[in-house]
Amino acid sequence: MSSFSTHNFVAIATFVCWFCCLATAAPLTSKAAYLLKRNSLIEEDASRKLGAKIVLTNEEKVLDDFILAEKRKLIDDSRLNQTEYMPAASFYRSKDFIDTTFAYKIIQDMPKGGALHLHDLAIASLDWVVKNATYRDNVYMCMDKDNDVNLRVLQLIPPDPFCVWKLVATERANSGDVEAFDDWLKKNISYLSTDPVTQYATVDSVWVRFNKYFAQVIGLLFYAPIMRDYYRQALEEFRADNVQYIELRSQLFGFFELDGTVHDAEFGLNLYKSVTEEFQREYPDFIGAKIILSGLRFKSQEEILNEVKIAMDLHKKYPDFFLGYDLVGQEDPNFSLLHYLDALLYPSIQNPPYRLPYFFHAAETNWQETEVDYNLADALLLNTTRVGHGFALIKHPRFTELAKENGVAVEVNPISNQILGLVRDVRNHALVPLIADDYPIVISSDDPGAWEASPLSHDFYVALMDLCGRDTALTFLKQLALNSIRYSAMSDTEKVAAKAKWTTQWDKFVKTSVEGLKPHINDRS
Amino acid sequence: MSSFSTHNFVAIATFVCWFCCLATAAPLTSKAAYLLKRNSLIEEDASRKLGAKIVLTNEEKVLDDFILAEKRKLIDDSRLNQTEYMPAASFYRSKDFIDTTFAYKIIQDMPKGGALHLHDLAIASLDWVVKNATYRDNVYMCMDKDNDVNLRVLQLIPPDPFCVWKLVATERANSGDVEAFDDWLKKNISYLSTDPVTQYATVDSVWVRFNKYFAQVIGLLFYAPIMRDYYRQALEEFRADNVQYIELRSQLFGFFELDGTVHDAEFGLNLYKSVTEEFQREYPDFIGAKIILSGLRFKSQEEILNEVKIAMDLHKKYPDFFLGYDLVGQEDPNFSLLHYLDALLYPSIQNPPYRLPYFFHAAETNWQETEVDYNLADALLLNTTRVGHGFALIKHPRFTELAKENGVAVEVNPISNQILGLVRDVRNHALVPLIADDYPIVISSDDPGAWEASPLSHDFYVALMDLCGRDTALTFLKQLALNSIRYSAMSDTEKVAAKAKWTTQWDKFVKTSVEGLKPHINDRS
Repeated sequence: MSSFSTHNFVAIATFVCWFCCLATAAPLTSKAAYLLKRNSLIEEDASRKLGAKIVLTNEEKVLDDFILAEKRKLIDDSRLNQTEYMPAASFYRSKDFIDTTFAYKIIQDMPKGGALHLHDLAIASLDWVVKNATYRDNVYMCMDKDNDVNLRVLQLIPPDPFCVWKLVATERANSGDVEAFDDWLKKNISYLSTDPVTQYATVDSVWVRFNKYFAQVIGLLFYAPIMRDYYRQALEEFRADNVQYIELRSQLFGFFELDGTVHDAEFGLNLYKSVTEEFQREYPDFIGAKIILSGLRFKSQEEILNEVKIAMDLHKKYPDFFLGYDLVGQEDPNFSLLHYLDALLYPSIQNPPYRLPYFFHAAETNWQETEVDYNLADALLLNTTRVGHGFALIKHPRFTELAKENGVAVEVNPISNQILGLVRDVRNHALVPLIADDYPIVISSDDPGAWEASPLSHDFYVALMDLCGRDTALTFLKQLALNSIRYSAMSDTEKVAAKAKWTTQWDKFVKTSVEGLKPHINDRS
Repeated sequence: MSSFSTHNFVAIATFVCWFCCLATAAPLTSKAAYLLKRNSLIEEDASRKLGAKIVLTNEEKVLDDFILAEKRKLIDDSRLNQTEYMPAASFYRSKDFIDTTFAYKIIQDMPKGGALHLHDLAIASLDWVVKNATYRDNVYMCMDKDNDVNLRVLQLIPPDPFCVWKLVATERANSGDVEAFDDWLKKNISYLSTDPVTQYATVDSVWVRFNKYFAQVIGLLFYAPIMRDYYRQALEEFRADNVQYIELRSQLFGFFELDGTVHDAEFGLNLYKSVTEEFQREYPDFIGAKIILSGLRFKSQEEILNEVKIAMDLHKKYPDFFLGYDLVGQEDPNFSLLHYLDALLYPSIQNPPYRLPYFFHAAETNWQETEVDYNLADALLLNTTRVGHGFALIKHPRFTELAKENGVAVEVNPISNQILGLVRDVRNHALVPLIADDYPIVISSDDPGAWEASPLSHDFYVALMDLCGRDTALTFLKQLALNSIRYSAMSDTEKVAAKAKWTTQWDKFVKTSVEGLKPHINDRS
């Protein structure tokens, strides 16, 4: 209903001021003075947001204008005509919409730098899992009591009173319709076969389904030859999505062979390392990948201590590829960092103290002033390099300041946070205020494979449309890409090289995009 | 699963420290030093929260312990056993649960000070509306196309092609079951007859239902004799809920008589004034009530200017009872404060400038960097006394600072924000971080009559359970009550008297509550 815009008013005010000063040197009218003050306050506020310091080139401005035009139209249409704002809706419903937008296509093309918060069992597409991995020899399936498929690579069918294991190949052949079978199989595994936002009432009930996903695929993906190809496929998909670098959390232990051999963490690390190196040789534009060992929050203190020791060994032996340690799994019902304090302090009490970098998930929770909420305090005191999720960080003023003072970036995964029940309308994401005040933030995608998101572009799109305002586009996206290099765990030297590679791709992206837009520029003027 | 608690660790650490120093003067172990540092960081963080500066008396501590015991049990049960945390669930489902809790009963008994954000058409209970107002003469009803009841007091039935007006008394008598009829009538009007959280997909669709409520009752409640009694009933209910003071937003215009007379704003103000004064004479423990004129955000600029002028006149004439001006209604699709700037600047451009206090609703919205989001900038620059809702305030670092610097309190209405679609799980309320950092905050209830909430206690309960942490109870509640006096629009002299009245009631409340708890104290030791 309202057709006044801030910019109109600013323009009027500026004109009035200029006119007053020039023509009569008379004092400003109250209204003109008010509007100048207003403009200055809004500018002061906006000057603090993430990306505000970036000065766009003329070419970038062209691109920015196109993105903003679409963004503003979507926002204004929805606000004024009261139609649903799809970019903030449940990803289950928004995904198809997002894929039709101009901004999404631009984001896909945009070199986004690194994805720094990822889990190894959900990084390649389910299409590949179904159409490639499950087509292999010795892949078995069984239906559990909830009618969910479990997949496993087996040499011999084990005695299992709860689940009847059958060869996937046979089941597929017997189904009579290969496409329908594969489609059913994918839907059965996918987190996005129903709408998680309406399907689950609580964070806990979502996590039951989420944990199920991992149970469904681990017996397939942990088969070493498949894991090798799965990871290679993930790198292909990330690169195709214009992500140049990843830091991957992995359990590392437990990759197995058909003969029953179960591998240790170093084997797992070398699997990732060799695939990464081969991939980098093939694609010199790709910056690289590094690994974070991730323990599970329900293990015993002894087991975690053992993992910390292994992490120290791997960190000494593979300093360029192995980054450090984290603990993963739903925080709320499981053990806190404090519970594992002896293990986590172990490196620092060595003589001399050993600095094992940590990358802790912390406060992916609604439980304020509880043990899990205080995972943030421990993450910060244990000198975590970054904080995974940190959803509740902003409920702690001192922790929030400390994270900024120490340059501890928060890894925000907007689609994950929505799907796992922490926020419904993504515009209400708890950490929007940190983005509005340029705290160290990176955007990642957590487990995109589990919910059929693109490697990083869907999360970047949702961040663009929901985590910043109507007047913000390319400065924000560019800063996010720069942040992903700045707050990565690469060495300073590596960062310089990474930034150079990224800059080459960025410049090319801007040029190509603007070139492609030229025929449309006249349409808009 | 985890049985370690922060307090255990602090106790151990303190003991280790004390023991080291006392026995050997040896340096602390790394772990003990860590735990001390941790404790200090957590304390530093917690020392900033709303209420942290309050030092409880021994009696208050007893009460605090009982509230905390229940709160912690609910939180721990839910977190560790993964049962639903009812205090954060949809109020449609949580209300019955809340009513069974110890904390709710204490909050009902607690003198809560003032409710500073209320709208005049939704302050008394629907039970009274149905069982009293609709039992009066000349009350008619019609069913609109959506099968919703509209109520109106009429002398003559108007020609109305869309709605057939019938006497409620006749319909009730013809129904054959008075209780069932009244129950149906109440459900038809109540916002809580279905679950708003699941019923409406977007903020806009909720507002359609919300506006319907006002349309249903306005023709009944604006009938002057009923409004007089409705307001009196509201005061009774607020007092019974141990609220001592209210600041009420009202449109003031349009109260009517059976003969068709439609009254002006001064009549409306005098209606409220006389009822308030009579009520205060009857109940000297009641602090009082004051009125804010509220225009509607879709009116023309001329109409709003006219209202501002009326507000100035009323403010001059009734400086002790009439507080100032606000604009109400859903912000998103309607006009911004900026749209009405000429009208709103009008008092300040008088010679001498007139200081008309404003109490603007601002940024009850998800639309960042839009005109409605910038209502915050205008509210602050127009020297608003408080901000109504201010849901998006925290997305603006400079505005947030300015509100604190200028002591501009935010009126937070947690149940309203949930019901009107801004937040689902109340623990994720956008303004929790401001509470964690002791910004000026008051808790109110907006339109409790529309959704069958108690006058203020349900909102206080939800604030206690969702907007602060597991270790926070009576300091928070007491500070909220104190804030409601401090940030009220009473004069300084009035505030001193108000605080004295409140303190008497508070001391009595603490004494009586602890007295009542004495039989249970031994059970707990």
